[in-house]
Amino acid sequence: MRLRNKPWADDFLRENDHIVVQEPFEHKNKWQALFPEKQPLHLEIGSGKGQFIAGMGKQHPDINFVGIERVKSVIVGAVKKVIDADTANVRMVNENARDLRELFGENEVDHLYLNFSDPWPKTRHEKRRLTYHTFLEQYHSILKANGKITMKTDNKKLFEYSLVSFSQFGMRLEEVELDLHQLDDPLNVPTEYEEKFAEKGQPIYRCRVSFK
Amino acid sequence: MRLRNKPWADDFLRENDHIVVQEPFEHKNKWQALFPEKQPLHLEIGSGKGQFIAGMGKQHPDINFVGIERVKSVIVGAVKKVIDADTANVRMVNENARDLRELFGENEVDHLYLNFSDPWPKTRHEKRRLTYHTFLEQYHSILKANGKITMKTDNKKLFEYSLVSFSQFGMRLEEVELDLHQLDDPLNVPTEYEEKFAEKGQPIYRCRVSFK
Repeated sequence: MRLRNKPWADDFLRENDHIVVQEPFEHKNKWQALFPEKQPLHLEIGSGKGQFIAGMGKQHPDINFVGIERVKSVIVGAVKKVIDADTANVRMVNENARDLRELFGENEVDHLYLNFSDPWPKTRHEKRRLTYHTFLEQYHSILKANGKITMKTDNKKLFEYSLVSFSQFGMRLEEVELDLHQLDDPLNVPTEYEEKFAEKGQPIYRCRVSFK
Repeated sequence: MRLRNKPWADDFLRENDHIVVQEPFEHKNKWQALFPEKQPLHLEIGSGKGQFIAGMGKQHPDINFVGIERVKSVIVGAVKKVIDADTANVRMVNENARDLRELFGENEVDHLYLNFSDPWPKTRHEKRRLTYHTFLEQYHSILKANGKITMKTDNKKLFEYSLVSFSQFGMRLEEVELDLHQLDDPLNVPTEYEEKFAEKGQPIYRCRVSFK
């Protein structure tokens, strides 16, 4: 449940400026400077309550992670999880990233995660889906030439749509799983939402795609 | 069930030479001559008991269909279904088509159907899967430049594999359905096998891909 009013949230996000990037647009082309080590940069769009990015940060100390989440009352939970994970390689951004090219320079990102994005099921909302071609253009710009996108969703229609959209954009599928939790990948870090769905036995879809 | 011995099968296939192509390799580059009308040529690999190709022939009188099935005791059932469908645009071939380029000339085919192909689940049998790249090379050769492949299967692993294999070959996904019978496509002609699986509520996967 998303609580609308968390008056302490502003203070909390400011106080934790070792994790929450305060002026994110000013870090375009210099995100590496925010981390103790210069190492591959992975970006999650829509981090929600942060279980994924905190877990990934812990699991991969040799990767720098940035998580973007626009909802203030939600990102506070993610920041807490990152604090609890006690890992130095995760930064959070509380922005509505309409155009990622304002936040990241060309080829600045190595890997991008789209986890359980809003499916926007109505055709007239197609443009809002994070795998619509205008978004793919953004990803293409900020990702390195050999950069990859990993997408997970429980939404069948969004997954079907995205596979076609990636392919029509000229991207290549490297991996597709149509029931991730049946596969039982020991390296998979589930989101909160994913856990709930998988427990009900509903399939989780995952794919990894690249631009070349 | 596949009956091994149908001693009358040879006679039956010979007698019905208006449907069963007797010397198929001699028709390379001239398949259109076997049909009353010159119109797009669609090919099904592994027609089984023929419900799909007989149904498609009936549904699309403006298309010529060729169905290949290597098992003699199985193709007789398909031939009967084509006779019952009373349509002039379906021909059957009883061959083990190891290389389709021996049967069809370059650009001779408009559309290819792979219905419920053997999944060959073991990694060491990957080469036998009909979406292995050596088969895609054959399809690329016999299909027109704008030709398409439609694949249906109930096998999740084969479908995952095939999506990646198509993509790695540089092909484009035009359509993906992860639960065809939930979609309730009124034009879908189910195979016998498909009907059985869909009745159990198991998902049927379908995709349409092209080479450009």
